[in-house]
Amino acid sequence: MNVPRQTSRDLRNESRFEVLHALFALGPSTRQEISRRTGLSPATVATLVTQFLAEGVLRIATVEQNTVGRPYERLTIDPDRGRILGIDVAETYVDATVYDVTLQPLAQHQVALDEHESGPAYVVDGIVRAVDAAVGADGIKRDQIIGAGVSMPGQVRPDAGVSVFAPNWDWHDVTIEALLAERLGLPVYVDNPLKAVALSELWFGVGRVTKSMAVVNLGTGVGAGIVIDRSLLRGEANNAGEWGHTLLQLDGRRCRCGRLGCVEAYLGVQGLQTTLSEIDQDHAALREPQQRGFVDAVADGLARGDSALDELARRTSHYLAASLGDLVNLLNIAHITLTGWTTAALGDWLIPAVRAELPDHVLPGSLPNLTVEASRVPGNPVALGMAAFSLERFLGTLGLASPASIPSPGRRLRSPV
Amino acid sequence: MNVPRQTSRDLRNESRFEVLHALFALGPSTRQEISRRTGLSPATVATLVTQFLAEGVLRIATVEQNTVGRPYERLTIDPDRGRILGIDVAETYVDATVYDVTLQPLAQHQVALDEHESGPAYVVDGIVRAVDAAVGADGIKRDQIIGAGVSMPGQVRPDAGVSVFAPNWDWHDVTIEALLAERLGLPVYVDNPLKAVALSELWFGVGRVTKSMAVVNLGTGVGAGIVIDRSLLRGEANNAGEWGHTLLQLDGRRCRCGRLGCVEAYLGVQGLQTTLSEIDQDHAALREPQQRGFVDAVADGLARGDSALDELARRTSHYLAASLGDLVNLLNIAHITLTGWTTAALGDWLIPAVRAELPDHVLPGSLPNLTVEASRVPGNPVALGMAAFSLERFLGTLGLASPASIPSPGRRLRSPV
Repeated sequence: MNVPRQTSRDLRNESRFEVLHALFALGPSTRQEISRRTGLSPATVATLVTQFLAEGVLRIATVEQNTVGRPYERLTIDPDRGRILGIDVAETYVDATVYDVTLQPLAQHQVALDEHESGPAYVVDGIVRAVDAAVGADGIKRDQIIGAGVSMPGQVRPDAGVSVFAPNWDWHDVTIEALLAERLGLPVYVDNPLKAVALSELWFGVGRVTKSMAVVNLGTGVGAGIVIDRSLLRGEANNAGEWGHTLLQLDGRRCRCGRLGCVEAYLGVQGLQTTLSEIDQDHAALREPQQRGFVDAVADGLARGDSALDELARRTSHYLAASLGDLVNLLNIAHITLTGWTTAALGDWLIPAVRAELPDHVLPGSLPNLTVEASRVPGNPVALGMAAFSLERFLGTLGLASPASIPSPGRRLRSPV
Repeated sequence: MNVPRQTSRDLRNESRFEVLHALFALGPSTRQEISRRTGLSPATVATLVTQFLAEGVLRIATVEQNTVGRPYERLTIDPDRGRILGIDVAETYVDATVYDVTLQPLAQHQVALDEHESGPAYVVDGIVRAVDAAVGADGIKRDQIIGAGVSMPGQVRPDAGVSVFAPNWDWHDVTIEALLAERLGLPVYVDNPLKAVALSELWFGVGRVTKSMAVVNLGTGVGAGIVIDRSLLRGEANNAGEWGHTLLQLDGRRCRCGRLGCVEAYLGVQGLQTTLSEIDQDHAALREPQQRGFVDAVADGLARGDSALDELARRTSHYLAASLGDLVNLLNIAHITLTGWTTAALGDWLIPAVRAELPDHVLPGSLPNLTVEASRVPGNPVALGMAAFSLERFLGTLGLASPASIPSPGRRLRSPV
C-alpha cells in the first residue's frame, strides 16, 4: 500500500494556500494577522505575500499609519482577478450564481426544471440557460470566469466527474463534468450538495471556529455534511453523510430509498406530510400541491396557533432531536448547523424544542459545549460551496497544492481551513 | 485558530516511524520491500535503516545470497529491545499481557474483579496483581518493560490521563494514569477499549489493506472503533464510536444509558436476553446466572437446533444488519469487522444472515466491495491495541514523531498506518 509522500514543496504550497484561506476568512488583513491566524512565521508570511503581490493574486487594500512606527498595509485577494460560477442543480430548478474570487456574489439566476423531463441533455440545457442569464448581468464578462462548481443530486464522483446515480432522474454513470465543460467552455467541478453545504459552512459559517460539525440539510431529502478535524468526510465513494438513510424506527415508514424506517421518511417534507396526515388527515395544508407550499402553510399555521400543526412541530422536533442525538453519539461532534428550506421556514419552531430534548439522547460526556443552530451562511450555501470548490481547484492550477477538500486519486481528502 | 505547523524535521520523523511500522506489518523485510511499502525512496530507506541499526532499534535478521548480485539483508525490529504491557480492564476482570517490541505476546494473566467493589484503589490493586503475575512469568524482567497501555471502561481522556466517567463504577474524573504510573513505576497510557480494538485491527487485521472501517465490538456493551482514511476517529472528547447508543427503535427498549431504543438495548447481552424472553420467557438459557454462560448456552442450543434460539438468532441478525447499515450509510466505510465475545460465540450464526440482509439497508452506491467479517486479530485485541498505543508513545520518546494515533493537545489525531 503506497502512500503519497509529502515533500517540502507540498509544505510550501500548503502554506501559500493557508495565507489565501486566512484572507477569505478574515477579510483584508495585515501580515501580522495572517501570521497569527495561520501559525506561519512572520518571515514566511512576508515572503509569500511578496510573491502573491508580484503574481497579482493579492493587492494592497489600505495603508494605515500609527502615530509611531512604520505604516502597515492591509492585504486582500484581488477581487477582479476573475469570476467563479457556483451552480446548484436540484430536481426542480437550477440556480447559478456568479462570484468574484473573494466569493462575494455578483449576479444570480434561477431556472425551473420540469420534473417530468430528466435526460442529461435536458438538464444540461437548463444549466446552460441559468448560466447564460447569470453571466448576462451587467459588468460580467464571460472570459473572466475561471471555473464552475456544479452540485448534482444523488451520488457523484468528483474525482471522475461522474453522476454515478441520481435516483429521481434514473441517471447512471453520466459523465456530467465532460458534458458541461464542453457546453460551458469552462473547467467544471462536480460534487454532491451535502459536501457543498459543509464546505460553505467551513469557509463562511461556524466551521471557522470549530474542528468538527455536521451541517444538516432539511428539505425534500435530508442529509448531513460531516466535518471531522476540519476535514470533509467523504467515505470510500463520496457517499458519506447519508444520515437521512439511517434508522429512526426499525421496520417503520417506507422511505423513498426503499428501506423501512429511515430518518428521511420522518423528516423529509413527505415525512412531515405523513405525520400531519396521522394527526389530521383532512388538514388544509395537505392540499397544497407543492412541497414548498406545504412547508409555508405549516409555518403560517404555526404562527396562528393551529393545534394540529403544533402537534406536527412537537412530533417532528422529537424525531429530529433523536436522530441528531445519534450523530452526536456516533461522531462526538461539537456543532450541528441546520440548513435547507425546511429549516428556513420552520427552524424557529423546531430548534428550541430540539435543544431542550437533546440532553435526553446524548451521552453526558458528549454534551458539554454542544451547539445546535441555524446556518448563518448568506445566500445559497450549495452554490457558494460549489464556487469555493471551484476556486480551490483553480488555486491548484496556480501551483498551489490544494489541501484537498477536492478529492483526486491517492490524495487525502482534507479540508483547507 | 492556530494550527501546529509541520516542519521538515517532522517529515523525517514520520518517515522513521513509517519504516518501523512497515516492519510491524511485513515482518522481517529487505530495504527494497520497506521502500515499496512506505513509498519512501530507496536512498531514504537506506539512510534511516543505517541510523536504526546504529541505535540498536533494528537488527539484521537474515542475510541471503542470490546466484548473482550482492547478498541482501532482511531487517527486523530487535524484539529484545524491551517489553510492553497491554492491559484490558473491564468491569469484571483485568487481563494483563506482556509483549516484546514486535508485539508478540510472551505471558498473560487474568484476575477477576468483584463487581460489587469498584473504588479506584480496589481496581488499581487488581491491575497491579494482574501485572505482577504476568511479569512473574519465566524470563521476563521488570526492568525490561518500557511502558503499559491500559484500557479503561467508559469515557477516557488519554491526553489528560483521566477516567472521565465510568458509569458502572460511578467514577468521575479519576486520575488513573497518575495512580497507575506510581504503583507500576512505568510510563502509562490510558484509553478507551473501542480505540484499542480499532488500533489492533489497523496494525494486525483488515486495517492493513483498507482505508476506512468500523470495528464493531459485541459483548455486554456494544460499540464501534471507527477508522476514516487510516485515522482513528476520536471526536471532540474521545467519545466517538458510541454506535451502541444510536437508535434502532425510537421510543423502544430502555437502554442502560437511560435512553430509549438504543442499539445496545437489542444487541448487548442483556438485549439478547430480553429478546429471548420475548420469544420464550421460560427458556433454560435465561437461567444462566452469568452473561458469558448465557451466550455459551445460546451457542450450544443453536448447534442443537433449538427453535427458540433459532428465532433469537433471526431477530438478532435483523437488528444487527439494520444497525450496521446505518454505519455504512452514514460513513460510507468499506469494511466492518466484528469482535468481542458475543461475536466469538455467535458469529457463525449471525454473520451469514447479516451479509444476506445488508443489501436491504445499504444505499446502492455504498454497497460495492463492502465486507463484513469476524476479526482475525489473534489473542486479546484490547490488550494488543493498548500495547501498540504504548509502543507508539515509546517511539515518540525516542525522538520519533508519532503520527498521532495518540492524541496530545493541539495534535491531529491520525493513525500510523
